[in-house]
Amino acid sequence: MLADRLNNLGTETAFAVSLAAAEWGAKGNKIFPFHLGDINLPTPGNVVDAMNRAIADGKTGYCAAAGITALREALADDVSMRRGLVYGIGNVVVQPGGKPVIGKFLQVVMNPGDGVLFPTPGYPIYESQVEYFGGIAQPYRYKQTATGFAIDLDHLRGQITPATKVLIYNDLQNPLGCQSSLDEMKALAELAIQHNLWVLSDEAYFEMRYSGTSTSIASLPGMRERTVILYTFSKKFAMTGWRLGAAIGPDEVIAQITKINTNDESCTTHFVQEAGIEALQGDQSGAQAILFELERRRDAAVEQLQKISGFVIAKPESTFYLFPNVTDAMDALGFTEVAEFADAALRATGVSFCTRRHFGRPLPGETEQYVRFAYSGISVEDIQQGVGKLRGWIEAA
Amino acid sequence: MLADRLNNLGTETAFAVSLAAAEWGAKGNKIFPFHLGDINLPTPGNVVDAMNRAIADGKTGYCAAAGITALREALADDVSMRRGLVYGIGNVVVQPGGKPVIGKFLQVVMNPGDGVLFPTPGYPIYESQVEYFGGIAQPYRYKQTATGFAIDLDHLRGQITPATKVLIYNDLQNPLGCQSSLDEMKALAELAIQHNLWVLSDEAYFEMRYSGTSTSIASLPGMRERTVILYTFSKKFAMTGWRLGAAIGPDEVIAQITKINTNDESCTTHFVQEAGIEALQGDQSGAQAILFELERRRDAAVEQLQKISGFVIAKPESTFYLFPNVTDAMDALGFTEVAEFADAALRATGVSFCTRRHFGRPLPGETEQYVRFAYSGISVEDIQQGVGKLRGWIEAA
Repeated sequence: MLADRLNNLGTETAFAVSLAAAEWGAKGNKIFPFHLGDINLPTPGNVVDAMNRAIADGKTGYCAAAGITALREALADDVSMRRGLVYGIGNVVVQPGGKPVIGKFLQVVMNPGDGVLFPTPGYPIYESQVEYFGGIAQPYRYKQTATGFAIDLDHLRGQITPATKVLIYNDLQNPLGCQSSLDEMKALAELAIQHNLWVLSDEAYFEMRYSGTSTSIASLPGMRERTVILYTFSKKFAMTGWRLGAAIGPDEVIAQITKINTNDESCTTHFVQEAGIEALQGDQSGAQAILFELERRRDAAVEQLQKISGFVIAKPESTFYLFPNVTDAMDALGFTEVAEFADAALRATGVSFCTRRHFGRPLPGETEQYVRFAYSGISVEDIQQGVGKLRGWIEAA
Repeated sequence: MLADRLNNLGTETAFAVSLAAAEWGAKGNKIFPFHLGDINLPTPGNVVDAMNRAIADGKTGYCAAAGITALREALADDVSMRRGLVYGIGNVVVQPGGKPVIGKFLQVVMNPGDGVLFPTPGYPIYESQVEYFGGIAQPYRYKQTATGFAIDLDHLRGQITPATKVLIYNDLQNPLGCQSSLDEMKALAELAIQHNLWVLSDEAYFEMRYSGTSTSIASLPGMRERTVILYTFSKKFAMTGWRLGAAIGPDEVIAQITKINTNDESCTTHFVQEAGIEALQGDQSGAQAILFELERRRDAAVEQLQKISGFVIAKPESTFYLFPNVTDAMDALGFTEVAEFADAALRATGVSFCTRRHFGRPLPGETEQYVRFAYSGISVEDIQQGVGKLRGWIEAA
């Protein structure tokens, strides 16, 4: 008999999409992997070199549970500078990736029975960890707009109950690719203050943008003391498999997350932390090249997807995700289930993508159909070829 | 207001010993760091080289939550061969170190209110994670013997209640350095079967031995299906800061731990896993050299500590810990609190060590005083010099 708590543990169901694509590819079919939220570009060489210098220097033993001091300083400086805030090393705890911040933040601020607002569609681990640690899921939805998506603030307000204690917010959003207007962000901050909420600001894509600038909700008045920022090296430096990130926030929360580190994994890989200092403070040409290549891919993917009859898609300025409305295309082909549409597309064209169902349970009343194209793991040439084949299949119907 | 569950979260208090040693060293005093459970020897070069080949080969992205298949196969083969068991990859889930196995195992098999037997003195994270996840602490004690320590089986039996569901067992024990007789291990296995207990077998030191052979409790009849083995690369390959380990056990438990990985950290550092394959299957001369050096240190430390008047210490054949009974030495110097004895020793001689208090709450009736010397982070020359100074201080009293 296993423990009862496992009944409340969710997962990332997108794994099944990878499996289906791999199986179809193993039969000799060319796969166009738009389902991958990973980056098929190398980590900048100066970061790898810094890691090897650290190993040669003996940095292969344990280090402090909160992370090495030099990396915490570098993170405090970088995050402060880019957000117009002042953080010190007591506000920074290093993690093996950005994802661990989600569960550890909830363990520190959420009691069983507390309500947690989180986005849907959204990163599925929010919902999973909220329910695993006994919280009440209070998902909030988005509205499609002429330029992308906006949070449905009326719906969000309607989800708030006296039990609500936490807001999870992911500006520059996965899977929507959308950015809050300053008014939208201010409205969320006002609600957080009014209802005395803790806020997790998932800023995984804060620097993954092709124009404009990012704003952290932590920088709005009254927000720094109630907000924990999720920081990750994964996207900017193509370091997803290195597992390096951090939680940045009020020192009393950071101290408790550090204590959880001591219990859970002792510390994050020592020499990987040394490499993180180089990533933040060394030559930035590698990070710039990654962003430049992603912008080329975005342009190609948006251009091709906008040509498909029955697809509606805006051009996001951040993340590496596109979330087209495919309702009309599905109608034209006679599909009512988006999973069946995705499966048929894979078999007809080799184009593999996730659907809205991989990003949290749908809310009552959702009638439009959406899928997610990630362009971080596929070349411009394959984007053009794959989406072209998809268009041919849809428009032949 | 932070979450109530944090009141049940313990920690490793040995950190305070490191801090006191560092502060005393910063004043210009030479420190003899017997408090460190870390290894001050380099990771074998072939392991580092394998990691760099993996990075050059693009292994910098995400991998499967359970670990890469080749490492899981290598672990299944290695652990099966050394324990006389048959495991496949479905029995193996890779972790960022050995420590994460403790909390994840408990989450999978223990409900709130379940009783958990664990050793005291013992690795303090057992007690911390049992109580954090709502279990009932049922610590069992050891008896000092002519050759080391033995589990007090009568005491252990007395701790069992109808609520008892889990046994945590650490043969080749930290901090005692002791090994179960086969009879002792069989008695534990009988109790586990009789009371239908899940067993965590912490085998962190299974291959850290200077003579004889290790036996896994999982290899006794009726035990494989109820036992999860904690495996770590940290000690054998001097990889403590790399964070690489695994849980090995029944496939239904391993599947649930894998799901927790997906929620907590996605995966263990990709290229570190590739290095782990080389560690297991490549040239073993590096691991042999580590063990040879540790044996030299053990011989030096035991020889010197046995000379101290008022210290009683056996010569363990495994781990890199010594746990002398220092009751008579403390009496001679007029100490009644072991923490005060340790602090005075540091200030008088620079010799830094942990005490029994760093390995779980003492049980009622404990009258003898013990301290722990770790010899993994200190050279033979410093062992001789440091313990010589300690002896001089004690015997001058």
